[in-house]
Amino acid sequence: MDSRVREHAEVLVEWSARVEEGDDVVVSVSEGAHELAVAVAEALGERGANVVTLYSSAEASRAYLRAHPGEFEVGEHELALVENADVGLRLGASRNASASVDVDAGTRAAKSKADEPVREAWMDLDYVSTLHPTRALAQQAEMSYEAYQDFVYDAILRDWEALAEEMAGMKEILDDGSEVRLVVGDHTDISMSVEGRTAVNSAASVAYNSSNLPSGEVFTAPYDTEGEVSFDVPMTFRGKQVRDVHLVFEDGEVVDYSAGVNEDVLGDILDTDEGARRLGELGIGMNPGIDRFTDNILFDEKMRDTVHMAVGRAYDANLPEGESGNESAVHVDMITDVSEDSRMEVDGEVVQRNGVFRWEDGFDEAA
Amino acid sequence: MDSRVREHAEVLVEWSARVEEGDDVVVSVSEGAHELAVAVAEALGERGANVVTLYSSAEASRAYLRAHPGEFEVGEHELALVENADVGLRLGASRNASASVDVDAGTRAAKSKADEPVREAWMDLDYVSTLHPTRALAQQAEMSYEAYQDFVYDAILRDWEALAEEMAGMKEILDDGSEVRLVVGDHTDISMSVEGRTAVNSAASVAYNSSNLPSGEVFTAPYDTEGEVSFDVPMTFRGKQVRDVHLVFEDGEVVDYSAGVNEDVLGDILDTDEGARRLGELGIGMNPGIDRFTDNILFDEKMRDTVHMAVGRAYDANLPEGESGNESAVHVDMITDVSEDSRMEVDGEVVQRNGVFRWEDGFDEAA
Repeated sequence: MDSRVREHAEVLVEWSARVEEGDDVVVSVSEGAHELAVAVAEALGERGANVVTLYSSAEASRAYLRAHPGEFEVGEHELALVENADVGLRLGASRNASASVDVDAGTRAAKSKADEPVREAWMDLDYVSTLHPTRALAQQAEMSYEAYQDFVYDAILRDWEALAEEMAGMKEILDDGSEVRLVVGDHTDISMSVEGRTAVNSAASVAYNSSNLPSGEVFTAPYDTEGEVSFDVPMTFRGKQVRDVHLVFEDGEVVDYSAGVNEDVLGDILDTDEGARRLGELGIGMNPGIDRFTDNILFDEKMRDTVHMAVGRAYDANLPEGESGNESAVHVDMITDVSEDSRMEVDGEVVQRNGVFRWEDGFDEAA
Repeated sequence: MDSRVREHAEVLVEWSARVEEGDDVVVSVSEGAHELAVAVAEALGERGANVVTLYSSAEASRAYLRAHPGEFEVGEHELALVENADVGLRLGASRNASASVDVDAGTRAAKSKADEPVREAWMDLDYVSTLHPTRALAQQAEMSYEAYQDFVYDAILRDWEALAEEMAGMKEILDDGSEVRLVVGDHTDISMSVEGRTAVNSAASVAYNSSNLPSGEVFTAPYDTEGEVSFDVPMTFRGKQVRDVHLVFEDGEVVDYSAGVNEDVLGDILDTDEGARRLGELGIGMNPGIDRFTDNILFDEKMRDTVHMAVGRAYDANLPEGESGNESAVHVDMITDVSEDSRMEVDGEVVQRNGVFRWEDGFDEAA
């Protein structure tokens, strides 16, 4: 076994999920994640955790959904499993990014709706989602398999403590600020309120309210969005690549949209429900190990020199205790490259210009 | 997909497990069973069942057990999952029969003991165990992969209703009888009581108290065993092949034993606990689709022309309501070829001679 697979499992179980003796852990294993599953089993065994391992097969799920008559209900046994667990680990590893592209959208939505209580139960766990490199993911990234493995482990096997410290500064700025404005070239000039919201220092650990490995972003839940924004980084959604998205906001809602490729997919997303036309997230990528786009949101949105926004559901961690933010069945992230000709202002002060943060060498406030 | 995989899934879900709309189903998928898992997902989707899919990886399990400090406890989440389910399906498909042979026997036993409540909960489900052909299983059977696939589907894709009818005759004989005696060559002459016990017509369906697909055996829970018996069919246990087992019984217990190969493995089994020295099962193989030994108990014990006995735990289905039979942490089946120079008597009447049952052409009562 590649020694990095074992290191990955260690980071996941120790830094990210903070697993302790006697914890009841659910591990969800994708079709291509066998090797990581073995390493994670070892790491969990060492700690004396109790493990249930789920098989998350896109092909089995497709077959099930296509055959199902359509009236979905939540399985009581599934709910009981997750509600009685302490920790949830998802090991993603697609063998074909388009494996379930031919499932009817209505069927998918009905199943997703029925699964709501299970999803909520997962979010109540010490939950971490990670990814094991596969050839299909390398293909999606337009990379060779070996180069892709190097890329993945550069993003995951980091000094998370040091990055958490750097990101704490960005979190402070957002927590103290009221209005964020992003200007990029002549296509993006968008403003939003973050007043009263709490940013998450997403340092790839449940101890930081972070559910992704890799992570390396600071995100909050904005509202009252005004202006327009272009997302020039392609993203694959439901097996289809959407490119060059442009959104226009008025009074916090998308009032106009376009996409260069697969505009209908974008339209479907925005038409999901009312909340799908409002922002649920503003995130700032800060992981220096991610130096290229790989058409995978788990990595792309954490890349340095990028800012992303999601339409749809807001995360509770960004909201005052007991308050609910934007609600939606979807949460779809879209990314803007800010490495050139850009500035991000918080309450009129420039915080990042052309990808350089104000606490870094080379930052030029006045441009 | 080989059309027989879909037929297999249909037989499993329809005939064997009798799955109905709204059933909460747990499917346990071994490392090599992906294709069957997809077909089973389709069959369960068609019926509108709710599915949780477990990944049963021998390699992950080995890694977990070898790393674990050794104080096992049952996971509350695992117990909650199984206790809240209606149906349990196990899709076996080993990629290496020796995958966990280097796990310490004490660790294995401790884990097995801790898992007792989970195992009991599985047995309370409408539970069926089946097998998907893999190259490792073909190798264990000393067969080519293609020939092994043919063999497996010949055993599984049968007219189960017709076989159930034939086996009902054998069940009646055992239910009405008091003493069973088996004589084979000069190495086996063994007698046991079956008085008060109920035989199971194991027709590969929960409707027949049968938990195996393929099945095709009639079995009961004997006691007061006397005499000696040779098991000339090799069996692989914990990754090691045991051959030419000979057991001597007095007052229902093994008082002497030997094996031609790996005798220490046999000794370990018999030393597990007190019940491991008594018989928990007597079974008569009646599946005409199984025409050779493949070193896999699920198939070997169902082969026509064989009789098997298990040391260890007896099944509740064989016992009067509320009564408990032989108890043990193990249940290990061993098989005798009765195709030649053999007779089985029930209360002195010959029921099977040289593999031919008394209701069949060619049966010769007097030999």
